[in-house]
Amino acid sequence: MNRPPVAAIDLGGTKIAVGLVNDGYRVLARAESPTIADEGVAGVVERLVSAVEQVTASGGLALKDLYGLSVAAAGAIDSERGIVTLSPNLPGWRDIHLRDMLNERLGVKTWLLNDAKAAALGEHRFGAGKGVSNLVHLTVGTGIGGGIIIDGRLYTGASGSAGEIGHMTIDVNGPRCPCGNTGCLEMLASGKAMVRDALARLNAEGKSLLTEMVNGDLDRITAREIGLAAEHGDSLASDVISRAASYLAVGMVNLANIFNPEMIIVGGGIANLGDRLLDPARRLVKERAFPVASAAVRIVLARLGNDAGLLGAAYFAFEGDK
Amino acid sequence: MNRPPVAAIDLGGTKIAVGLVNDGYRVLARAESPTIADEGVAGVVERLVSAVEQVTASGGLALKDLYGLSVAAAGAIDSERGIVTLSPNLPGWRDIHLRDMLNERLGVKTWLLNDAKAAALGEHRFGAGKGVSNLVHLTVGTGIGGGIIIDGRLYTGASGSAGEIGHMTIDVNGPRCPCGNTGCLEMLASGKAMVRDALARLNAEGKSLLTEMVNGDLDRITAREIGLAAEHGDSLASDVISRAASYLAVGMVNLANIFNPEMIIVGGGIANLGDRLLDPARRLVKERAFPVASAAVRIVLARLGNDAGLLGAAYFAFEGDK
Repeated sequence: MNRPPVAAIDLGGTKIAVGLVNDGYRVLARAESPTIADEGVAGVVERLVSAVEQVTASGGLALKDLYGLSVAAAGAIDSERGIVTLSPNLPGWRDIHLRDMLNERLGVKTWLLNDAKAAALGEHRFGAGKGVSNLVHLTVGTGIGGGIIIDGRLYTGASGSAGEIGHMTIDVNGPRCPCGNTGCLEMLASGKAMVRDALARLNAEGKSLLTEMVNGDLDRITAREIGLAAEHGDSLASDVISRAASYLAVGMVNLANIFNPEMIIVGGGIANLGDRLLDPARRLVKERAFPVASAAVRIVLARLGNDAGLLGAAYFAFEGDK
Repeated sequence: MNRPPVAAIDLGGTKIAVGLVNDGYRVLARAESPTIADEGVAGVVERLVSAVEQVTASGGLALKDLYGLSVAAAGAIDSERGIVTLSPNLPGWRDIHLRDMLNERLGVKTWLLNDAKAAALGEHRFGAGKGVSNLVHLTVGTGIGGGIIIDGRLYTGASGSAGEIGHMTIDVNGPRCPCGNTGCLEMLASGKAMVRDALARLNAEGKSLLTEMVNGDLDRITAREIGLAAEHGDSLASDVISRAASYLAVGMVNLANIFNPEMIIVGGGIANLGDRLLDPARRLVKERAFPVASAAVRIVLARLGNDAGLLGAAYFAFEGDK
């Protein structure tokens, strides 16, 4: 327990969160900044750099005192080579050597991993999945990311991309996904899918608290508004959530049959919907998965919120994917 | 290499195959018998016993000389407790303590595992997947079974049922599966699915070589006849195969995105269709899976035929699921 802290970064499509994490996995200081991905790679890297400098200074340290920098980024990541291969939420990011860019810029050893894998590591080591050998972690936000823990270790596959559970086809006749596949879970059960569904229903029916909540500016509807409207008894919003939850449930039946895991953890922004999201999955898994698999699996909410990604990224720097 | 041979058994819905396998994994003698599952559990156990006695005698041994008996059985298997929990292809088998029954009957140490897992172990240790760390093996026959190798070991999950890839929903609006789930891969891409599709097309169109091949007795159509008819240029049969192959391809895109495996191996009776079955999958994985996953995966035919299950079962007895 004598290593200096890691600056852990969660780089998402809308927000950059940085935490100074010591090797006892306490977050000593935090900083946040908008991503503003539209301004291009160089601008985002600038904001990453200043957030890291800020959080390091808040912790009373200089950059050279850090154990390292660990970035959990949205998108397809090549961890070994330190490259953001492609990121749907970071427009224009294709084969960006982010690890080397940050390393050169800050002179600090840098790690890079996928954000959903970081969250899975975080929840497994420090959160809802502590001590569990085999689990699947879903990050349900704008999209759906996944992380698979097998025999207590992050499973990354032949070339680091294992766990793209959001891009499992569950409806072969379903909508085309920007990833190139069809009827992906993410197209049907993510925050993005909920917003699309809400807009379609508003167009068809026109009546919902949602319209008032955004003062008629439908572009401002996000999963958060849908959740709030449902809490206030809005039936259109409730239907949107039920539909997404039922698709998510189908995905979980698949995960139960394929992995026979001890646990499926659901994190990410949409997890704030809580049991309204998970109860349909618990029911459907009992109804449809193999009995031995359904008896074994607990379907639970993540515990660490946004810290899952930060702690997972810090863990990845201190310990690798062990 | 000094252990006596194992009598390895492949217990399927129509056939019992037994092989005497030494610890260098050579098959020294073989015996076969029909399963005749309709006659109930006791009858099947009798036929298992005599096939084992026959193969042991052929090898110049007595039962007491065997290292053990290892049964690869179709259905949901509890390996630890030695129970056939449920087997769709063995009517009436529910919570059958097959391991203890055989052990008591023959006085020989007995192991029990799922047949698709045995085939995966066999192909991984001795066949198409030799030396590969991460792979998924599909047994496509009447149904679709799966076996997952992770870090060189059979992955069995929290309670031994991992790998039920045939019961992954790929069409949420698809046909109900006897397993209780909906739109399962097995309902769309297995031998059973092909026969169902062929009969539906024959009802609608009426013209196919298939009708002649079975002398008008449509109940006799199996995947084998469909394959033969397609080879003779029958367009109905070709369409049936194309449809099943395209669904199988969707399943493989899912496996590539979820597991990022080095290899997907296809064995089982339907694998005799060869590249006619696999080429659509290779194309679709290239088109739709994540590029890094599709670049990593080779989609290949199994090499050991029916011996995969026997060698896998023998391996399970000699080495466990290591």
